[in-house]
Amino acid sequence: MNISASRPKVVIIGGGFGGLAAARSLKKAAVEITLIDRTNHHLFQPLLYQVATGGLSPTEISAPIRTILKDQQNTKVIMADVIAVDRGKKQVVLSCGSPICYDYLVVASGGRHHYFGHSEWEALAPGLKTLEDANRARERFLGAFEAAEKAETDALRKEWLTFIVVGGGPTGCELAGVLPEIARKALAGEYRSFTPAETRIILIENSAHVLDSFPDDLRVCATADLKELGVEVIPLRKAADIQADHVMLDDGTRIPCRTVFWAAGNKAGPICATLGAEQDRAGRVVVTQCLHLCDDNSVYVIGDAAHVQWHGDMAVPGVAPAARQMGECAGQNIGKLVAGNADLMKFSYIDKGSMAVLGRNKAVVATGKLHFHGAIAWLMWLFVHILYLAGYRNRLLVLLEWAYAYVTYRRGVRYLIKERVD
Amino acid sequence: MNISASRPKVVIIGGGFGGLAAARSLKKAAVEITLIDRTNHHLFQPLLYQVATGGLSPTEISAPIRTILKDQQNTKVIMADVIAVDRGKKQVVLSCGSPICYDYLVVASGGRHHYFGHSEWEALAPGLKTLEDANRARERFLGAFEAAEKAETDALRKEWLTFIVVGGGPTGCELAGVLPEIARKALAGEYRSFTPAETRIILIENSAHVLDSFPDDLRVCATADLKELGVEVIPLRKAADIQADHVMLDDGTRIPCRTVFWAAGNKAGPICATLGAEQDRAGRVVVTQCLHLCDDNSVYVIGDAAHVQWHGDMAVPGVAPAARQMGECAGQNIGKLVAGNADLMKFSYIDKGSMAVLGRNKAVVATGKLHFHGAIAWLMWLFVHILYLAGYRNRLLVLLEWAYAYVTYRRGVRYLIKERVD
Repeated sequence: MNISASRPKVVIIGGGFGGLAAARSLKKAAVEITLIDRTNHHLFQPLLYQVATGGLSPTEISAPIRTILKDQQNTKVIMADVIAVDRGKKQVVLSCGSPICYDYLVVASGGRHHYFGHSEWEALAPGLKTLEDANRARERFLGAFEAAEKAETDALRKEWLTFIVVGGGPTGCELAGVLPEIARKALAGEYRSFTPAETRIILIENSAHVLDSFPDDLRVCATADLKELGVEVIPLRKAADIQADHVMLDDGTRIPCRTVFWAAGNKAGPICATLGAEQDRAGRVVVTQCLHLCDDNSVYVIGDAAHVQWHGDMAVPGVAPAARQMGECAGQNIGKLVAGNADLMKFSYIDKGSMAVLGRNKAVVATGKLHFHGAIAWLMWLFVHILYLAGYRNRLLVLLEWAYAYVTYRRGVRYLIKERVD
Repeated sequence: MNISASRPKVVIIGGGFGGLAAARSLKKAAVEITLIDRTNHHLFQPLLYQVATGGLSPTEISAPIRTILKDQQNTKVIMADVIAVDRGKKQVVLSCGSPICYDYLVVASGGRHHYFGHSEWEALAPGLKTLEDANRARERFLGAFEAAEKAETDALRKEWLTFIVVGGGPTGCELAGVLPEIARKALAGEYRSFTPAETRIILIENSAHVLDSFPDDLRVCATADLKELGVEVIPLRKAADIQADHVMLDDGTRIPCRTVFWAAGNKAGPICATLGAEQDRAGRVVVTQCLHLCDDNSVYVIGDAAHVQWHGDMAVPGVAPAARQMGECAGQNIGKLVAGNADLMKFSYIDKGSMAVLGRNKAVVATGKLHFHGAIAWLMWLFVHILYLAGYRNRLLVLLEWAYAYVTYRRGVRYLIKERVD
């Protein structure tokens, strides 16, 4: 280890798709890398809604970052909470312990939910970004049925059996789409005070059709699919207020309901604000086409934390492939600088298309001019997601879980630790 | 459901081995059963140490109680926290919601850890009774290695890499036995500041050999096995004090250490005290040979909550088969009373023997006069535990996990959500 003492220090904040790609692309560089993450695992976020609904275990969509990078000897992994970047001192400040110095920094700290000024909604309407979020969502979702079984009035039982998803992006649609099947199939016959088929699933979307970023024909299909699955889609509406026992829409409609999930907006994490650089409205740091800060080519920002121009005014979307591609580009640019080459690579986003799954045999896929829908799109979705799952073992287990759930309609992960009483 | 309105109400507190057996044995009785549990799942407690050490997921050793009893139409399952029994009103009092009336009551509320007057140790030295306990233990165990990687002094790193198990009963031995393998194999090569082989595992046992309840020859074998696995067994000692950074033994030895697990004693849960009946020193309710209270044949206490005389002064041991047998007996006695037959069955414990696993190919089994040890005992242990796991799906998954872990030495469940900073 002493040999590396004089090597440039690269610090990477975040072990998501972007941070991992940056670390990997520096595998052979003569640098000393420290990757810092708030948790100890890389998370396959696209399947987080499956953990939130009891279909998969947390362990099936996560892998320890240090296991992934075990053989990359120039990299040390630290589990710690970064609270700020001090660019003056070239240090990363942790919530506890000494600060960590860097020569080059990659900020890949991801995003959080955006409640548009209503941070008090977070406790009532959790979003889905981390395993902690997903565990909490699962406890709330399954806990609602337990509370319904005990409810002493019909009105209260109805509130417990009403679930609202706010936001019709891919996460919102995937979550809303899976809920009716669980309620009507997985939980059937297990309660004595009601039948789970009484469950209402409501999706609130602020445009005419769900899946804003998809082509129009697929958006119409997706809305129809969700309705067929039993989701009540309320278009052209926003949540005006969220309370423990109801959601108020912006047209004054009051929906009694005890369980709300938030999938309506994203913003960059709080570290971005400490960089002292320009941020967009969602808090993302505006970077150059080479992905570093405008005035500092030793600090890179990538993934959901970055605002990178794409088509005209549009930014590169906050999706896993974009984060991965940015991580590779940032890593390569740092590699060039370390090697004394200041001719940095410009980031060019390769858009491989978008996909969203809505339920059993129902999905939409847009790749270039080709649009797919129904069972074929569902198989494409399944194939891509299994292909990308980090680690062979997870893939095998996830396949088994899915095969089992597909055939039997049952959900594997049902345990609850605490009673829900809110 | 109206037909059953006039049927006698049986309330069962607890969905463990005892409570479930009681419910099942009343399957055909003309009663209306309410089974209440603090959680929503039945737990296969004998494998809890595998969850605590990341070998199995919580879902693999638990099954929803309402799924198990789905087809038993005379039974309703409620997830609620029972805080007291009001025998005067024949009611069970919950932490929230209306009390529940009973005609017959089965208390199968299990046990908690006994800290012998030092309840302040519970936070520092958690035990293993529930999934919540096991999750907390896993976070502490794996979190200690994360903290060691960041430790700024060698002394602090040593503290993080020292693990103490207090108590050499089956749980303590199984836990201590599995730790060296994880440290030396599963985590090998993943840290840059130390090698996991530096880990110390210490087992504190207050007699000369571990496994108090086993025959002497097997106790000697088990102690030798643990030492061979790399566990430092400290015999004839008790913990005199436990602090965040050390454990003090009763001979004044101070062992610097940040992670302690408690497996030294059990006592009955707090509900027992509200029954107004005689309790033994461990808080267990003394019941008749028919398992009901001495002065009340409508209230039964079973499993770890009950003190039932066995050989002379000895009580029936607090193990799963005993709880299951007691549950069947209590259920049958209630069935008799409901049918107007006051000739109750006396409980007779059938001891099928004891087994404990110490590590790969190492176990001890005592059944009557036959004693087994080594690989054959290990296979017997494996066979019995897979056989008894509740539900086919769990069994298959657990087998796969085990086969995988056996071949690769890896632990599947590694994710941590929060940094450990104590």
